[in-house]
Amino acid sequence: MEPRIHTITLAVEDLERALVFYRDGLGLESDGVVGAEFHDDVSGADGAIAMFRLAGGLVLSLYPRTELAKDAGIPYAPPTSGEVSLGHFLGSRDEVDRLVEHIARSGGAPLEKPRDRPWGIYSGYVQDPDGHLWEIMHSPLVDPNA
Amino acid sequence: MEPRIHTITLAVEDLERALVFYRDGLGLESDGVVGAEFHDDVSGADGAIAMFRLAGGLVLSLYPRTELAKDAGIPYAPPTSGEVSLGHFLGSRDEVDRLVEHIARSGGAPLEKPRDRPWGIYSGYVQDPDGHLWEIMHSPLVDPNA
Repeated sequence: MEPRIHTITLAVEDLERALVFYRDGLGLESDGVVGAEFHDDVSGADGAIAMFRLAGGLVLSLYPRTELAKDAGIPYAPPTSGEVSLGHFLGSRDEVDRLVEHIARSGGAPLEKPRDRPWGIYSGYVQDPDGHLWEIMHSPLVDPNA
Repeated sequence: MEPRIHTITLAVEDLERALVFYRDGLGLESDGVVGAEFHDDVSGADGAIAMFRLAGGLVLSLYPRTELAKDAGIPYAPPTSGEVSLGHFLGSRDEVDRLVEHIARSGGAPLEKPRDRPWGIYSGYVQDPDGHLWEIMHSPLVDPNA
């Protein structure tokens, strides 16, 4: 397989709430909910989804949990945390502190104050409104824009 | 926030099993398990992790489920599927079929035969050994290398 991930789809309970968090709260650009005209008669899944184009061509999508289960053909499972963590590097510790505070004011839940980890990063975890983990990080060895 | 995800960390039950699947099965390059020398006295989390550098600078990491819970400071939760789906585009329907078959032979679980979806893609879902969803896709409108 080519070493590439093109899309990351997060299962969400409430598409509009998640869109507001990522678009208005975090400032990611989106055309809003698209695909509402589609319905899959095979799986029963509706097509409504929200997408964000990120650096490197990666697309972050928000898709209702019920519909992802139908589309993938798996049993519906209630939300849980700790399956996946998305990591975001910043250029300084101050920026980490500020983004964690900003996310908290935007409907996310900070899990603790950012702190040093023994593996050489300074970071704090936050949860989006659906419990998905983000780790906001700084390392002197990592250029966030590289 | 800058529109960028730097890392995707998947919680895994057995680090070695997951590494074998992604490195030997899917052919992603990795230095293997690193960070085993680290332990965080604050959270109790061990540092052992496996990483894969993907296109666009994105890093895919495999980290034991127990340690991710400790590191993030959340309660341990048993594995579940359907929280997140990672998407991979290919240049043809044949390539989708072949990759899904290859993943099945490599310890992944295909959920159904790839098929057309009403939103214009041809795709099939598979699960990695920990149940994480991958959607293997083709769309005539998407250049996998763009």
